[in-house]
Amino acid sequence: MILDSLIEPLSRLPGLGKRSGMRAALYLLQNKETRLYPLIEALKHVGDNIKTCETCGNLDDISPCSLCRDETRDTRLLCVVEQVSDLMALERTHAYKGHYFVLGGVLSAIDGIGPENLRMALLEKRLQSCEEIILGLSATVEGQTTAHYIATMAGHLGVTVTALAHGLPMGGELNYLDDATIMTALNARRSL
Amino acid sequence: MILDSLIEPLSRLPGLGKRSGMRAALYLLQNKETRLYPLIEALKHVGDNIKTCETCGNLDDISPCSLCRDETRDTRLLCVVEQVSDLMALERTHAYKGHYFVLGGVLSAIDGIGPENLRMALLEKRLQSCEEIILGLSATVEGQTTAHYIATMAGHLGVTVTALAHGLPMGGELNYLDDATIMTALNARRSL
Repeated sequence: MILDSLIEPLSRLPGLGKRSGMRAALYLLQNKETRLYPLIEALKHVGDNIKTCETCGNLDDISPCSLCRDETRDTRLLCVVEQVSDLMALERTHAYKGHYFVLGGVLSAIDGIGPENLRMALLEKRLQSCEEIILGLSATVEGQTTAHYIATMAGHLGVTVTALAHGLPMGGELNYLDDATIMTALNARRSL
Repeated sequence: MILDSLIEPLSRLPGLGKRSGMRAALYLLQNKETRLYPLIEALKHVGDNIKTCETCGNLDDISPCSLCRDETRDTRLLCVVEQVSDLMALERTHAYKGHYFVLGGVLSAIDGIGPENLRMALLEKRLQSCEEIILGLSATVEGQTTAHYIATMAGHLGVTVTALAHGLPMGGELNYLDDATIMTALNARRSL
C-alpha cells in the first residue's frame, strides 16, 4: 500500500512507533492544505538553511549563530552542554545570559568516543576568552567523566569551573527518588 | 530561531508534543541524508498521489483501491468501519477476507453529524450487492447509534447484519476492566 511508504519514515521519528506513525500519516493526509504541505515546506526550508554554528555548535541559519552574536550576553560565562537540545532546555528557563558551547556528545570508553571525536580542541581555544565555565552535562558516568576531563583542562588555563547542582528535582517526592540522588542531596545539604 | 519553524509543525502531529517535536526536529537535521530528505520525498509522493477510493473510502494511489480490486476477496461480506485506520487495524489481523466500507465518521447529535455528512447514501447502494455486513464500529454511544442506524437500513434490504463481539480484550485482567465491559461479557457468556 502507498500509505506504508509514508508510515515507515514517520514511525522512525523518535517518540513515534508503528501505530503513532500511522496516525500521523492519516492526520497529515486528511489535512493536506493545513498540515501536510506546510510541514513539507518547513522540512525543506530548515533542512536547506540550517547551519552548525562554528563558534558554539548550536544550530541556526547563520554562523556564528544568533546567540553568539547577541551582544547583551555575558562573554565571561561559557556553559558547556552535550547536545543542542540541552542548550534549548537551558534557554527555555530564561535564567542564563552567558554563552554556550555544544560538545556534540560525551566521552565514552564503551562507544569508543575520545576527546578527538568531540569538539574538545575548539573548546580549549574557546576557554582562553572566558572567566567561568559552567558544566551542564548529564549526571551519568559518561557525563561526569567528561566534566572531569574539561575541569582539568580549564584548571590548567586558570578558568573557574562550576557545574549544575545535583539534588532533588523540583516537585520530586523523596519516596520515589533513587538512592544516589538522595545521597547526593544529603551530602550537598545547605543551611537555611 | 529557525528551528522553531520546524518544531512547530512537528509538534502538531498526533502523539507528539513540544518536547518530542523538538527531538524529532533535531533527529531529522542530524540525519539529513538518511532521514530528512527521504521523509520529505515520502510526504510529497504520498501527498500528491493519494486518492480516496470511490467504492470503499480507503486511501490508496488507485481508485477503486487495491482491496476493492482484489478478486480473491469475498464480495458477499462487507465490513463497515469509521476510519481508514480502523480498516488498517482489521487488515493487520489477516483474519478478514471480505470487502470494506469506510463511513468517514459516526453519527453524532452533539457534533451535528447526520447521515448526510457520512457516506450513508453510498453505503445503501453498496448494501444491494452483498449478503452480510459486519459492523466494526466503536463501542461508544455514537458508534452504537450509528450501528443501529445501519442495521435498520440493512434490515429493510434483507441483508444479514452482524457486529464485532464485545467482551474481555485478550490479556485483559478482570480486576482492571470497567464495569460496562464486564457486564457485557457476562451477558454474552458462551458455553465451553
